[in-house]
Amino acid sequence: MRVYLDNAATTPLDKEVLEAMLPYLTEHFGNPSSIHGHGRLVRSAIERSRKKVAELLNTSPSEIFFTSGGTEADNTALTKSIEAYGLTHAITSKIEHHAVLHTLEYLHEQGKIDLTYVELDEKGHVSLDHLEAFLKDHPGKALVSLMHANNEIGNLNDIEKIGQLAKEYQAVFHTDTVQAVGHYRHDLQALNLNMMVGAAHKFHGPKGVGFLHINHNCKIHPFIHGGAQERNMRGGTENVPGIIGLAKALELAYEHMDEHRKHMESLKESMIRQLSANIEGITFNGDSANLNNSLYTVLSVSLPPNEDNDMLLFSLDIEGVSASGGSACSSGSNVGSHVLGALGVDPMRGNIRFSFSRFTTQQDIDFTVQKLTELVAVRA
Amino acid sequence: MRVYLDNAATTPLDKEVLEAMLPYLTEHFGNPSSIHGHGRLVRSAIERSRKKVAELLNTSPSEIFFTSGGTEADNTALTKSIEAYGLTHAITSKIEHHAVLHTLEYLHEQGKIDLTYVELDEKGHVSLDHLEAFLKDHPGKALVSLMHANNEIGNLNDIEKIGQLAKEYQAVFHTDTVQAVGHYRHDLQALNLNMMVGAAHKFHGPKGVGFLHINHNCKIHPFIHGGAQERNMRGGTENVPGIIGLAKALELAYEHMDEHRKHMESLKESMIRQLSANIEGITFNGDSANLNNSLYTVLSVSLPPNEDNDMLLFSLDIEGVSASGGSACSSGSNVGSHVLGALGVDPMRGNIRFSFSRFTTQQDIDFTVQKLTELVAVRA
Repeated sequence: MRVYLDNAATTPLDKEVLEAMLPYLTEHFGNPSSIHGHGRLVRSAIERSRKKVAELLNTSPSEIFFTSGGTEADNTALTKSIEAYGLTHAITSKIEHHAVLHTLEYLHEQGKIDLTYVELDEKGHVSLDHLEAFLKDHPGKALVSLMHANNEIGNLNDIEKIGQLAKEYQAVFHTDTVQAVGHYRHDLQALNLNMMVGAAHKFHGPKGVGFLHINHNCKIHPFIHGGAQERNMRGGTENVPGIIGLAKALELAYEHMDEHRKHMESLKESMIRQLSANIEGITFNGDSANLNNSLYTVLSVSLPPNEDNDMLLFSLDIEGVSASGGSACSSGSNVGSHVLGALGVDPMRGNIRFSFSRFTTQQDIDFTVQKLTELVAVRA
Repeated sequence: MRVYLDNAATTPLDKEVLEAMLPYLTEHFGNPSSIHGHGRLVRSAIERSRKKVAELLNTSPSEIFFTSGGTEADNTALTKSIEAYGLTHAITSKIEHHAVLHTLEYLHEQGKIDLTYVELDEKGHVSLDHLEAFLKDHPGKALVSLMHANNEIGNLNDIEKIGQLAKEYQAVFHTDTVQAVGHYRHDLQALNLNMMVGAAHKFHGPKGVGFLHINHNCKIHPFIHGGAQERNMRGGTENVPGIIGLAKALELAYEHMDEHRKHMESLKESMIRQLSANIEGITFNGDSANLNNSLYTVLSVSLPPNEDNDMLLFSLDIEGVSASGGSACSSGSNVGSHVLGALGVDPMRGNIRFSFSRFTTQQDIDFTVQKLTELVAVRA
């Protein structure tokens, strides 16, 4: 048996999504910028996809720009809004994804912005008081970048309240919604945000494609220069099958969202209950065990200090369970999780992120609990 | 009958390429940065692809970085080499692709570089004397960006000589090889270039993926910040099926390159011969009719001034022929071709770019010649 519990890293492509993509990997191969028949057919498919994404997010198609993924979308949003509005101050948190953190750190090193990290409580929640005090000091000059849901511990930020504060102090508000899109509904008419991003492969769409929502009030210039694609906002021939796949995947995600949510919530609850009963001293990072305040797709487990903790993920892998230590994006770098570090989690504890999808079964959970319980039981 | 003669805009995906991609759109869905089994399998496939691309280009895998396409690769190369080396002067030509021109123009507007356009002769060939004089004036401080092959008229630049000049005057040499990769062999051990780029969809690979070659002597920083992907050079989850497809497509292109070249050269010759015989006053833009000095995949045709020239592409489209006026990337912007403008081509002439692939047949050419001849014959 092989169990995949690393859906926050990436999700399997839905078969229906692949089916929607296949015509654009075969007969409909034209360049959407070409004005002839081969091109027009593809152009109209892209525009239908844009319309679909916009409908689901309750906004206008003119506010949706397709990108190569969440990271490019974050880079575009941050770099170009600071440039366009002459923003001098940015506030973010130490537990943002590296796509946000490294971009802001780079802009800070370049002398473009002062960079402030918002205070977090012991569970990793943003201090809205600190945020408001910061915004009060920099009216009209600040960028706020705070994610909707944390990719490692699952904490949810109240982006509605953050958006209200940003609006009150004329700040530009960007939110990395990569882990939330397709799992939570975003009503862009109601939320006071300027820019948000999504990555298809986090909701059973293909890798290599994402989107950037830019509110019509927010005017920024392209990050990638070139042709007139995406209404002059992003040069480069469109990833056509990717875009078709993204829209189809989001459509499927919305269609059965409540049902899928209920399913995953029950899996997460079951895992918390079983692990708590089986493993002494187990805790859950951040607010991960709080179903009302964290992603229902993520459970971040913390095992008591043990010299064999380093081997936990490898041992689970050998037993047939794919899970992760932190975010996949930083696995290659062989450094500890910056998120757990920022929360002051004892580095001697063993941290595992289990993340679920609509395809995860109760059997997957039971098998994983059993394997982890056995692994912990036999150690010193 | 429907004929596709717009292969410089994009090429159909090869069936064998799709077959190579499909496992990575289905069962092998892991995130290559994940250290568990699902991830490692995909990581090793990506690295095999990198090795294959490097072998074909006679370089080391450590010099190949996958991107979302040629445009992102060009943006990265230009923006980040200017920054890394403190380059103050850039030289390019007015007939470069917008991915290069618009990026350099942006960097110029930002006050980062002085921008010079190299002199072109009446056929659009670069003046090497002018280039050398420029480089002599800015030793160690210049960026040269000149394409291998022009996407609209097909002109080939002598990138070997340009590379020698760049080396002599310690300039950084970037070349946009998007139209040449997969159609000409590039020996990166022999060519004195620092950076070159490719886009898979120009050689029967998928859209949304390309590569940037960076010579090991050339150290630049990431353009897209985020995770540790591509050895810290490009944040963002890799477009795995795209990368697999790119490598397979390049492999296929190299396997039968000579045979395909012979085939397309004969099609191009036949088209030149037939059109010249059938249509009075027809000419060919740039050096397009010179088989030794232009892409064998592109023929840029120029018809005598006529008030119906605006309708030519639409009429051809109705007759079943997909061709283009200039580059597809600028079709959306409804402005004339900047390439033909720079060459001083009379805007009243009717310009059509026909571009071929290994799947183009003699019948496609004959049909197109017949239709174009008929269209021209019935006009005033």
